[in-house]
Amino acid sequence: MPAEYDDQNIFAKILRGELPAHKVFEDAHTFVMMDIMPRGDGHCLVLPKTKARNILDADEATLKAVYQTVQKVSRAVMSGFGADGITIQQFNEPAGGQVVFHLHVHVIPRFEGVKLRPHTGDMADPAELAANAAKIAAIMEDMAG
Amino acid sequence: MPAEYDDQNIFAKILRGELPAHKVFEDAHTFVMMDIMPRGDGHCLVLPKTKARNILDADEATLKAVYQTVQKVSRAVMSGFGADGITIQQFNEPAGGQVVFHLHVHVIPRFEGVKLRPHTGDMADPAELAANAAKIAAIMEDMAG
Repeated sequence: MPAEYDDQNIFAKILRGELPAHKVFEDAHTFVMMDIMPRGDGHCLVLPKTKARNILDADEATLKAVYQTVQKVSRAVMSGFGADGITIQQFNEPAGGQVVFHLHVHVIPRFEGVKLRPHTGDMADPAELAANAAKIAAIMEDMAG
Repeated sequence: MPAEYDDQNIFAKILRGELPAHKVFEDAHTFVMMDIMPRGDGHCLVLPKTKARNILDADEATLKAVYQTVQKVSRAVMSGFGADGITIQQFNEPAGGQVVFHLHVHVIPRFEGVKLRPHTGDMADPAELAANAAKIAAIMEDMAG
């Protein structure tokens, strides 16, 4: 079974406000931010605020809250961001593709004829990330309001 | 927003017993079977029994039940199938990678140094699928019992 949760991981630091992020949405149990190495425009990450390493150790309430927020983000990018589809990915343990050991779900807006960009390790333009974060945040506020 | 649910999709037919499947697990709300074009050994699909096209139209109870079962399958393949990690994918609408329009989550056991197999469209050996289904089913029964 998975290793212990390490609260020095970068997402834990972001949740504590020790590192910056392009925040999109936040509720009592979850936090949404832009992936800084997006595989497509509007690529978001949905995190629980609880200490969960991945799906293997997450408790029931955490898992439920995370996927409710994944659904909200998915509906927002479909309705307001012009996406034609959504690819959702979640990686567990290094062999499963996990790099940061705080549970997170990738929500990747997809557009007809546009492939996922490869993992290059290059960071996106911060201004573009900020613009996409603001755009998706506004759509989610509209949908909630 | 997504098109209407079409109950002639092949997963609806499997759920109604009109088509066969390599069943792994079933509870009141979900059904688990082997993917017949696996991207890795033990690649399972988790489906709700309710009529949901994808994450965009799924109701809250459906989403919760599906991911609880995804977690059960993930824990089973880690503990008893010898996996080192799990890759979870869920595709929405054609641009998002969806091919069958009944909500389903891919749970792909991962092994150190083994890449995902490409989508070839080739079906796996039915005897191998049946053996993996039986193996994962037995682990899940043990974990529940």
